Amino acid sequence: MLGNFTYHNPTKLYFGKDALQGLSEELPKYGKTVQLIYGGGSIKQNGVYEKVVAILKACGKTVVEDGGVMPNPTVEKLYGGIEIARSHHTDLLLAVGGGSVCDYAKAVSASVHCDEDPWKKYFLRGEEPTCPTLPVGCVLTMVGTGSEMNGGAVITNPAEKRKLGHVFGSDVMPKFTVLNPEFTYTVPMRQMVAGIYDAFNHICEQYFSGDDDNVSDDLSEALMRSIVKNSRVAVRDPKNYEARSNLMWAATWALNTLLSRGKTTDWEVHGLGQAVGAYTDATHGMTLAAVTLPYYRTLLPYGTAKFKQFALNVWNVSPEGTDAEIAERGLSALESWMKELGLTIHLRELGVREEMLEGLADATKNRSGGYKILTREEMLAIFRASL
Amino acid sequence: MLGNFTYHNPTKLYFGKDALQGLSEELPKYGKTVQLIYGGGSIKQNGVYEKVVAILKACGKTVVEDGGVMPNPTVEKLYGGIEIARSHHTDLLLAVGGGSVCDYAKAVSASVHCDEDPWKKYFLRGEEPTCPTLPVGCVLTMVGTGSEMNGGAVITNPAEKRKLGHVFGSDVMPKFTVLNPEFTYTVPMRQMVAGIYDAFNHICEQYFSGDDDNVSDDLSEALMRSIVKNSRVAVRDPKNYEARSNLMWAATWALNTLLSRGKTTDWEVHGLGQAVGAYTDATHGMTLAAVTLPYYRTLLPYGTAKFKQFALNVWNVSPEGTDAEIAERGLSALESWMKELGLTIHLRELGVREEMLEGLADATKNRSGGYKILTREEMLAIFRASL
Repeated sequence: MLGNFTYHNPTKLYFGKDALQGLSEELPKYGKTVQLIYGGGSIKQNGVYEKVVAILKACGKTVVEDGGVMPNPTVEKLYGGIEIARSHHTDLLLAVGGGSVCDYAKAVSASVHCDEDPWKKYFLRGEEPTCPTLPVGCVLTMVGTGSEMNGGAVITNPAEKRKLGHVFGSDVMPKFTVLNPEFTYTVPMRQMVAGIYDAFNHICEQYFSGDDDNVSDDLSEALMRSIVKNSRVAVRDPKNYEARSNLMWAATWALNTLLSRGKTTDWEVHGLGQAVGAYTDATHGMTLAAVTLPYYRTLLPYGTAKFKQFALNVWNVSPEGTDAEIAERGLSALESWMKELGLTIHLRELGVREEMLEGLADATKNRSGGYKILTREEMLAIFRASL
Repeated sequence: MLGNFTYHNPTKLYFGKDALQGLSEELPKYGKTVQLIYGGGSIKQNGVYEKVVAILKACGKTVVEDGGVMPNPTVEKLYGGIEIARSHHTDLLLAVGGGSVCDYAKAVSASVHCDEDPWKKYFLRGEEPTCPTLPVGCVLTMVGTGSEMNGGAVITNPAEKRKLGHVFGSDVMPKFTVLNPEFTYTVPMRQMVAGIYDAFNHICEQYFSGDDDNVSDDLSEALMRSIVKNSRVAVRDPKNYEARSNLMWAATWALNTLLSRGKTTDWEVHGLGQAVGAYTDATHGMTLAAVTLPYYRTLLPYGTAKFKQFALNVWNVSPEGTDAEIAERGLSALESWMKELGLTIHLRELGVREEMLEGLADATKNRSGGYKILTREEMLAIFRASL
């Protein structure tokens, strides 16, 4: 059964090898000053920066630089971005890069005209914007977060050792996003597979919740199968356009709100993983990978029917044996695929030490949408099992 | 491989038992005069009309009646609706009913400020609107066409014996749509199954085209499986909310442009079926059902790999035998399901006679996106095989 819900996703997407032409179509709709947001400089190495700046200039825009957004954007960086937007009277926030820059751009969008501290208002208290927002556009160069077509933003506060997300409404969603799969070719293998796993896990978070057999489950299974199939091609042949384009498109739909309509969702892998991210600054997708297997093995007895469905419909395992046996066979297949991709499945490799575990449990935002709410003991056991 | 494309679908959806509350949220965004568009009066019998008018009054709107939209809206009716909108200075076109009223509302939207004959401009010549359009909202009471979240409109010209569609851009798409599965409970069984088949066939039209194995195919198979599964519940138990809600949601996604992104599409079942509709005024979904099997059996040798994939992934048939045998097993499963639903699969039952066949072939818009372009002889053979 599908509960009451609304669906509204106005982001306009330009997809394909010629997608950057969409930027020329969009820019005239906005004012003169464009705040160009990017990360550590990889877009300068792969030529995307140059192409984007050429289009901005051709459209007569004044470019205000806002580079150096880190993989886990900090609250200090956010305060700096707000200051840039205020002092230059930014008309459009243009994020060029992966999910971090998109997230950061959305957080700046909702904060420029906000009188309160955005960390407190949006991330700690979870309130909605009560001020005008700035338009955001994206040119995506890394696949995984889905930030290019949703209202989500995750910001890290290193002093408080907290990494927290807020999902903004459709006003803050990107007005447009450019999706050229070729722009993802130069992403290092480790980042590529972390992004693939991030996208896959977004689907799991929405799938492993609720007892209904509805359209969302069917769509989720389809996207998961597609990601598994195409990831196997992409790790062997990273410049395979078919695989990279399917991964890019599937990752966008994995977290643009479609799959969660009318059902409960879990998000506890993200709850556990974000605690690890706040402590270690490790790559987001790898933190999810490291906590996934012990968490799902903890969850399995409480949602056996769904884990069995996952095993049969996503991994096509043998239907012999008890429900629990079939369900565990699905998690074994997941584990094999994760190893095949070279994902980090041990927290120690991300810099976690035994003495951090209590702190990680403190920093974990415990969600209640899945098949069970974790006790503190279970959280500690999951972190320990992954060490 | 996914080709270049854009995706932009800004329709806001309110779904569920409480979805009509969305109308109260939306109405204040528009001017005072609402043109209330509906069909033959079923919404007066099932109470939806009364509920909608109560909300319109509570929001202080002036209601201009525009009822009597027929199942295949005619060009004469369209001219009448344009006249109503012009003389009353309509601010919002509110369609309450099934695909016909949504289609009609979109055609009126693009025509009110158009100086040319909309039949010629949009439907015969396929041009885009060059004038301002009026906003459209929908309250859906019948599932199938997908018109509630796309830019499509089909209009029939009985004098010319032509039924033609035009796909308008996102400006003409409904600004909002109310989707309450309970509003579909009173649809007669014959209309319900025709709508279910319409939705299923929309997916087929986008699926049976192209050789690539991409995300769209995975999503299409998921939606087809969901429709088959839920239709079997709905025909036995029409008030099963879970089945009706899944059917409603799947039908919306079957034709809101997602599935066709980056791939070629066919639409020849609609080409053949709309010719039948223009001649007989038969229910749209039934015209599609009647031409489907002979058309797909004609197409099968040219797209065997895809028909085999359809057989295995949608119908879960045995993988024994040659590709052609497996593929035909899928069409047999489709045929069994169509009979199980009580769909009309013979043109004679829709009023077609042998002497009409040449005229039907003349009226068929031949598309070129599928696995083969039909010759006139093949069209005649398909119509004849269905008699």
